[in-house]
Amino acid sequence: MGAIKYELIKECKQSGARLGKLHTPHGIIETPIFMPVGTQATVKTMTPEELKDIEAQIILSNTYHLYMRPGHELIKRAGGLHKFMHWDGPILTDSGGFQVFSLSDLRNITEEGVTFKSHLDGSKHFISPELAIEIQNALGSDIIMAFDECTPYPATYEYAEKSLERTIRWAKRCKDAHNNTDNQALFGIIQGGMYKELREKSVKEMVELDFPGYSIGGLSVGEPKDIMYEMLECTAPLLPKDKPRYLMGVGSPDALLEGVIRGIDMFDCVLQTRIARNGTALTSEGKVVVRNATYQEDFTPLDPNCECYVCKNYTRAYLRHLVKANEMLGARLLSYHNLYFSLELMKNIRIAIENDSLLDFKSEFFSKYGY
Amino acid sequence: MGAIKYELIKECKQSGARLGKLHTPHGIIETPIFMPVGTQATVKTMTPEELKDIEAQIILSNTYHLYMRPGHELIKRAGGLHKFMHWDGPILTDSGGFQVFSLSDLRNITEEGVTFKSHLDGSKHFISPELAIEIQNALGSDIIMAFDECTPYPATYEYAEKSLERTIRWAKRCKDAHNNTDNQALFGIIQGGMYKELREKSVKEMVELDFPGYSIGGLSVGEPKDIMYEMLECTAPLLPKDKPRYLMGVGSPDALLEGVIRGIDMFDCVLQTRIARNGTALTSEGKVVVRNATYQEDFTPLDPNCECYVCKNYTRAYLRHLVKANEMLGARLLSYHNLYFSLELMKNIRIAIENDSLLDFKSEFFSKYGY
Ligand SMILES: [Zn+2]
Ligand SMILES: [Zn+2]
Repeated sequence: MGAIKYELIKECKQSGARLGKLHTPHGIIETPIFMPVGTQATVKTMTPEELKDIEAQIILSNTYHLYMRPGHELIKRAGGLHKFMHWDGPILTDSGGFQVFSLSDLRNITEEGVTFKSHLDGSKHFISPELAIEIQNALGSDIIMAFDECTPYPATYEYAEKSLERTIRWAKRCKDAHNNTDNQALFGIIQGGMYKELREKSVKEMVELDFPGYSIGGLSVGEPKDIMYEMLECTAPLLPKDKPRYLMGVGSPDALLEGVIRGIDMFDCVLQTRIARNGTALTSEGKVVVRNATYQEDFTPLDPNCECYVCKNYTRAYLRHLVKANEMLGARLLSYHNLYFSLELMKNIRIAIENDSLLDFKSEFFSKYGY
Repeated sequence: MGAIKYELIKECKQSGARLGKLHTPHGIIETPIFMPVGTQATVKTMTPEELKDIEAQIILSNTYHLYMRPGHELIKRAGGLHKFMHWDGPILTDSGGFQVFSLSDLRNITEEGVTFKSHLDGSKHFISPELAIEIQNALGSDIIMAFDECTPYPATYEYAEKSLERTIRWAKRCKDAHNNTDNQALFGIIQGGMYKELREKSVKEMVELDFPGYSIGGLSVGEPKDIMYEMLECTAPLLPKDKPRYLMGVGSPDALLEGVIRGIDMFDCVLQTRIARNGTALTSEGKVVVRNATYQEDFTPLDPNCECYVCKNYTRAYLRHLVKANEMLGARLLSYHNLYFSLELMKNIRIAIENDSLLDFKSEFFSKYGY
């Protein structure tokens, strides 16, 4: 018995997209799903009750950030991440690899692990695959990630290959280090840069290690979207059908749709809350930059087709006022709507798969959205 | 028929404090009451629904800020302040006088009004008593304030007297300008600095103008608390018993209690939300500076005696983490608790008046709080 179980309910006859259920220690997730990001043990501006209101089924948190502050030992003593942040639904954590490799003060990568300086106080730290697992074991998240290198873009074939091979060796070490398999499912991460051959190699070797789920990493890192979709097309079909597939760090409306069509079950992205803090909304009719003067006296809802709390109770003019006046409520309401919008999109995607009409849904959505 | 009606229910036999009901166009307020401050048409970080949850009965908004941004004409076109900000309970607005007189770029005070520069863009503006009323008429708040000078502290007797006399002349002009008396109640403001004689004179002349309610201004401006309480003692008893009395800008727990004991019905203060943004909470056991390292691993509630959403669901350690990590949810949860705490204090004060035991309640509260 593992910590999770993926149940494939059906594949869309029109698109091949997967409809499924993912059973986790903290509840069942209907897939495909978008996961709001709670980097520092909080989905920015939102309470857990609000996340439930908008039907968030699982959230993501960041191992690197929690390790740095407040520390995984503290969270363990608090009773784990769920209890610490008052969220009783499923949580997925990343491995910290992405953040550690992105640090400019990154000192040294060896076979053993990565030495780096904290972005908070410059203090020196070392993360190995084993420590990445120890931290995530302390956090107690339902789904945890193997420690990997997110191959940068662009990268030479040689670099991408070396990096991928190390990621595979590290994945083995993560698997060996993980001693809480009944409560936490460890995902292996597919890398390989933008090289089809390396992606295939990565899938083959990761699948041999037999993880309860697979993440696709190293995409949406600056490459053209077409290349990302090609990489998905040569990767996803090789993954076992009875395991969940998570496309890391991807969550714009078009990429959600294109990803699902290519067989992805799980997504996360900071876009929704980040653009909210800049005064921008995702709507059924495209992006609305509420901050703009156009909306100064626009007394209509943010998105006329949205049923969320924000769209039912506030006008664009008021939201613009809040944003211009730097009022926290502005970021709050826009975050709420943007997350609702994305979760609602996933719900409609699931319905379209059920009805074998996801390609029709996509054309309709894209033409309204203005893609 | 005026816009409001004050009903004196009883006076506490132990303290003389007043229990009452204030009928307004947007609902009945049980007094004495604390009013959360929503300077820019939002009580910082809070939704109107949350204000209802914590039983806020009336909120305050600031005429100067709304005049500057987004402008009273825009709010009028939005359908008034209630509709603009999605709050259907009573609203009180100040006159803008306090802010205008506090501006360092204040240019010129004449009998006609005040010329000043905007704190936003430096643009030049002129506010007269008539414009202060016109703005508040456009906002549509239930209770509006006459345009006054909040006499600074310290001030000479001569300055305080001249300022007070102008405030009285301006109050007359405000009364003449106010043409929406059925829906908006105009309060006259008592000034007079820290001079008993001038306070008495101010009351006498304002009461002759027969306003539906009276504000006491120019207190809590830097003077010792004893002097503030003396000024209240020589002012409040002279005010008509059948009109509400509002002590402007005062809201620390001790001042709320001392004010009620001296016959005050209404209070407002930015303290609750301001200290929340700095990581400080008001609790039954005194101030808790959650930011402090003491609370790093304190897995107990913010206030063990509080029944609010925050105290029921989060620990001091988590709140400290949010504050240290600059997460908006930290300011949000602390604002929520601080406002709840103050409204709960007012509720307990009303119960104690009902039971003729407000002085007993005060001793008990103060000894727990550590005053
Ligand atoms: Zn919405
Ligand atoms: Zn509380």
